Amino acid sequence: MAARSGGVETLRWTGHRLELIDQRALPQRLEYVACASAAETAAAIRDMVVRGAPAIGCAAAFGVALEAARLRDASDVARAEGMHQAFAALRASRPTAVNLFWALDRMQAVLASVAGRSGAEIAAAAAAEAQRISAEDIEINRAMGRHGAALVRDGARIMTHCNAGALATAGYGTALGVVRAARDAGKRISVIANETRPFLQGARLTAWELVQERIPVTLVTDGMAGHLMQTGKVDLVVVGADRVAANGDVANKIGTYTLAVLAARHRLPFYVAAPCSTIDLSIRGGDAIPIEERPPGEVTGFRGVRWAPDGVAVANPAFDVTPAELVTALITERGVVQPPTEAGLRALFG
Amino acid sequence: MAARSGGVETLRWTGHRLELIDQRALPQRLEYVACASAAETAAAIRDMVVRGAPAIGCAAAFGVALEAARLRDASDVARAEGMHQAFAALRASRPTAVNLFWALDRMQAVLASVAGRSGAEIAAAAAAEAQRISAEDIEINRAMGRHGAALVRDGARIMTHCNAGALATAGYGTALGVVRAARDAGKRISVIANETRPFLQGARLTAWELVQERIPVTLVTDGMAGHLMQTGKVDLVVVGADRVAANGDVANKIGTYTLAVLAARHRLPFYVAAPCSTIDLSIRGGDAIPIEERPPGEVTGFRGVRWAPDGVAVANPAFDVTPAELVTALITERGVVQPPTEAGLRALFG
Repeated sequence: MAARSGGVETLRWTGHRLELIDQRALPQRLEYVACASAAETAAAIRDMVVRGAPAIGCAAAFGVALEAARLRDASDVARAEGMHQAFAALRASRPTAVNLFWALDRMQAVLASVAGRSGAEIAAAAAAEAQRISAEDIEINRAMGRHGAALVRDGARIMTHCNAGALATAGYGTALGVVRAARDAGKRISVIANETRPFLQGARLTAWELVQERIPVTLVTDGMAGHLMQTGKVDLVVVGADRVAANGDVANKIGTYTLAVLAARHRLPFYVAAPCSTIDLSIRGGDAIPIEERPPGEVTGFRGVRWAPDGVAVANPAFDVTPAELVTALITERGVVQPPTEAGLRALFG
Repeated sequence: MAARSGGVETLRWTGHRLELIDQRALPQRLEYVACASAAETAAAIRDMVVRGAPAIGCAAAFGVALEAARLRDASDVARAEGMHQAFAALRASRPTAVNLFWALDRMQAVLASVAGRSGAEIAAAAAAEAQRISAEDIEINRAMGRHGAALVRDGARIMTHCNAGALATAGYGTALGVVRAARDAGKRISVIANETRPFLQGARLTAWELVQERIPVTLVTDGMAGHLMQTGKVDLVVVGADRVAANGDVANKIGTYTLAVLAARHRLPFYVAAPCSTIDLSIRGGDAIPIEERPPGEVTGFRGVRWAPDGVAVANPAFDVTPAELVTALITERGVVQPPTEAGLRALFG
């Protein structure tokens, strides 16, 4: 299984190891971190070696597969205990992106279907399901791209936030999948990438993906978005999502809500591109979505360089919630829900 | 002349040199850069050794005084030519903050009033006027603080952007002057400081000033402002300004417009604290205010650490314009203009 973006694989599965691009080191260094267990995979998710809701789901599925392989020759009791701990560690790795729980639920269902079989059969079934989840993710992104590209006119200047690209998925991307599909459809689009403090996914990952593919991209700081809209330099906004509530509220990387408010003021379309696995019908509205608070060191500096003074308090919510009323449309692999109402979202699953 | 903030002087005048805190090195290192000429002062302004509209005005005035001292024994012709070049260099140092031009106009008027006198008398008059501008700035800020503090209730959680503090002025600050005055009036306020990419004046300067004075301060990234307002953690916003047009439109550090849009959505007061020297009645509306574009390296990294990929284009507008309709009130040393209409602004000068 190889998820490729410009020749680069976000996740690499060897059968014995999960190899993840260390997204903390990009774009300066292209390095892989190898995981041989669920615990190592959970740590890689927590520490943001891998990030992006769909990519987190894929990584977690492989984490389960790794554990099933590790426990191939264990007793039934030891395997049951080991897998229980594996799921617990993976479920606790990050709270907001629902794709993590969706993928783990799928893995749990597969394991239930092979209960009582040999350790080798269980490991094979787990590995096969994880590979399916990743392969499907790329197909889903391509379908989303086709639906989304129809909303993008020739010449459009597209603002995006964070990284919802190949690096956030098994490949191709959600928001950047729309960008790629529009480009592949012959539209002369360009992208404005918000740098996305504190983790700088826009500056480091989105800019890198687009430079690699020669899609014109301009990097700006997050505070510039309003000015660019006000001076007529943005035609539409497209972002990914970490969780979509039943009413259409969208949790996504911190700063997304601000963009949606600005887009509404400037009457610009605000699109969210997310697979159906990101929709959580069990959560009624966005205020019930858990928002992860990350370590203060991400805000006080970057990569070991500290610029804030000692003694300052820090808030570091990693996500925010954009109310459905500010979302022009939700772009999924099953079609575009415009506007994103509860009835529209439920119909996707109907 | 000593402009003090917690024992620290933003600008220090020795009679022969202007010493400026190197604000690029704060808060890690407290160092002074000495300027002995107008050209060195202009370079310090351009390179943001000193920044903040009122502080830039004070520094430029001292730059003129330095040049008058340097040319004390020059011929009248040589002095006229030297001063002409000094004014040109200082006027070209940064385009947006009008205080620079206001201070230079004042210096030019004083020089005109001593035309034909001895070089020593001219130098003395220039030095005296520059010292007056700085001393007045502190008094102006204290008056602004008193007016502004009346708008701040006990317990208020005040969001601010960039640094409009002692370091942005000869001392005390404009927006942070309001904070200081509210605290001094016994109000238990706290501050949320937006880090203010790309130059991180909020993280480095505002946080540092407030930590030093034990005013509770929480540092956040710029993209978090919307989420904090949405979740009820902000009571009001107060910022400084680099130029206020006749119609009340406000040019200020990039990101300010976004905050104003968010504050309007959440029905939070959005205050601008600026001395009358920041009001430019010659400019009708904000769209005519020149917006400085700064070097791309400020966006692609910080302090020599680069995180963006090679080959990415960058936009780096240093300021944006907030339309008057989004400004609840303009706080000046002559009183509060609420809302900031052209008639109200003109009345300040009437």
